[in-house]
Amino acid sequence: MKGTVLHGAHDVRFEDREDPRIEKPTDAVIRIALSCVCGSDLWSYRGIQKIDQPVAMGHEYCGVVEEVGSAVKSVKPGQFVVGSFFASDNTCAHCRLGYQSSCQHREFFGSAQAPFLRVPLADGTLVPTPGIPTESSIPSLLASSDVLGTGWFAAEAAEVKPGKTVVVVGDGAVGLLAVLSARQMKAERIITMSRHQTRQTLAREFGATDIVTERGDEGVARIKELTKGVGADSVLECVGTQESMMQAIKSTRPGGHVSYVGVPHNMTLNGEQLFFSHIHLHGGPAPVRRYLPKLIEMVWTEKIQPGKVFDLELPLDQVAEGYRAMDERRAIKALLRP
Amino acid sequence: MKGTVLHGAHDVRFEDREDPRIEKPTDAVIRIALSCVCGSDLWSYRGIQKIDQPVAMGHEYCGVVEEVGSAVKSVKPGQFVVGSFFASDNTCAHCRLGYQSSCQHREFFGSAQAPFLRVPLADGTLVPTPGIPTESSIPSLLASSDVLGTGWFAAEAAEVKPGKTVVVVGDGAVGLLAVLSARQMKAERIITMSRHQTRQTLAREFGATDIVTERGDEGVARIKELTKGVGADSVLECVGTQESMMQAIKSTRPGGHVSYVGVPHNMTLNGEQLFFSHIHLHGGPAPVRRYLPKLIEMVWTEKIQPGKVFDLELPLDQVAEGYRAMDERRAIKALLRP
Repeated sequence: MKGTVLHGAHDVRFEDREDPRIEKPTDAVIRIALSCVCGSDLWSYRGIQKIDQPVAMGHEYCGVVEEVGSAVKSVKPGQFVVGSFFASDNTCAHCRLGYQSSCQHREFFGSAQAPFLRVPLADGTLVPTPGIPTESSIPSLLASSDVLGTGWFAAEAAEVKPGKTVVVVGDGAVGLLAVLSARQMKAERIITMSRHQTRQTLAREFGATDIVTERGDEGVARIKELTKGVGADSVLECVGTQESMMQAIKSTRPGGHVSYVGVPHNMTLNGEQLFFSHIHLHGGPAPVRRYLPKLIEMVWTEKIQPGKVFDLELPLDQVAEGYRAMDERRAIKALLRP
Repeated sequence: MKGTVLHGAHDVRFEDREDPRIEKPTDAVIRIALSCVCGSDLWSYRGIQKIDQPVAMGHEYCGVVEEVGSAVKSVKPGQFVVGSFFASDNTCAHCRLGYQSSCQHREFFGSAQAPFLRVPLADGTLVPTPGIPTESSIPSLLASSDVLGTGWFAAEAAEVKPGKTVVVVGDGAVGLLAVLSARQMKAERIITMSRHQTRQTLAREFGATDIVTERGDEGVARIKELTKGVGADSVLECVGTQESMMQAIKSTRPGGHVSYVGVPHNMTLNGEQLFFSHIHLHGGPAPVRRYLPKLIEMVWTEKIQPGKVFDLELPLDQVAEGYRAMDERRAIKALLRP
């Protein structure tokens, strides 16, 4: 088959790769219904995260099970499934406590921008949908496999609750779906930091009550103004830079909660500053697997439509254009159809 | 009157100072029953935290109200009171949410190693005891004003709950009282990191179930061993150094909670490392005022005896020896009697 491989900065190729096959009895191979480009793929695409050798790309997927290994019990060929970017056994101590993305046997696998995918630990990783989904719901199921689950974790980790004032830093797909998640958790006020018209509109549609266009210390001052000098209860940092993290911390009231869900790049936190900020801090790679059954159910019953973050659709062989469009912020998120 | 003044590293003097008096209508002046030396006083005593000019010392106190300003309503002369090291109005948005040590009008005041003390924002800051305490209970009431309240916050901030495995990093008075707090919160297992015989004994008396003498990465390995490779649920960092913080973070399971309650000195946290640790982090200056009514009640009914951390008693004019004894770790905590 052909699949997506990153050879270096700005060098994405759709080229011949070996067909995925069952390698261990716990594997499954699935036929990808839809895949997409992730904001986190851009770190290596832009050369900020160095790669030593060509890397197969893609970690968001849903599709139909083609084949399973002999030990797989919970999914079978023909089922439509959604999984997360970390394979997890869902039985170890960390998984049982809801941190499947820190599973003691976790495997990261990134080769989903392709027509077929090998999924390790299939029993723990994959969640079947109630049936074969309609064509129009597949993008929303795909969103559940990463960006929605990550936005949902951002909201939970920042203790979003009814009546609270929430700030979302970052207007990428994760930030936008963090807005949707905060709305589902019945936040009273949801302030999105965004300067981009299309993203502002989608944020409003997902439930944002206020938009702040200022950044850095000016953004912080604006949040203080909007909260009568107190600061926000919950701030969801969905970018991963030093600036966005400091903006998040400074926007939060003492005793409030900051979550962070994008891999931090060149970020250091000063202990004393953090101490006197008096905030709660929680984040890390989102344990999407914990939320998948619930998120699939919400998509299935049309309670939410997270698939709206896809504003560009391309045939898989044009994947390089997907990267370019997201890099240039022409697209929020690019859908890839095999 | 004479009071305690730090003139520079290792230079503590008991010398003439102005008598405290009512300066604002919201002030009270109290006659100190007992004061003490705090582990945090040692940062400036040791010259690690620089001082520009002579500094009056002492921020732990209890005693009898001598005089109140015209606006003070909730305490009156003759009452025995306990207060915290940050004066707080107890009415602002931060106070109402339980973060009195980030009160919008907070004042730090450090001149309690003296016979008399001016307390700002007396209505918000001071909590009267149910009556005049017995002589033997006064050290425990004094402990409530900082070290017990701080240990209690450490336990709450790390979400200590029944059934959990707790690690306490630091065997100073705060660490020891964090053990006592974790016991009150019904932790199943409480592991104290300590190499010091006297402190180990007191930790056991306060409720520690295990003692670990290793430090740094060896200490982490020992905690992993004791928790079957999983890590602890709650780790209470009661020191404030880079090493103790890293030890705390690495000892915690993914999804577990780290609290930190000592002012961090030269501590920086790497964003990526923190991210993949998957921990919750919360700390800051303990909002002791939040807990004072409860802690006073527990001392009053003899449910707890936090005053046991005082293992050296000196007349106030020998305060310099109190600093020396704690600096040399000959004493856990020095009581000062005016």
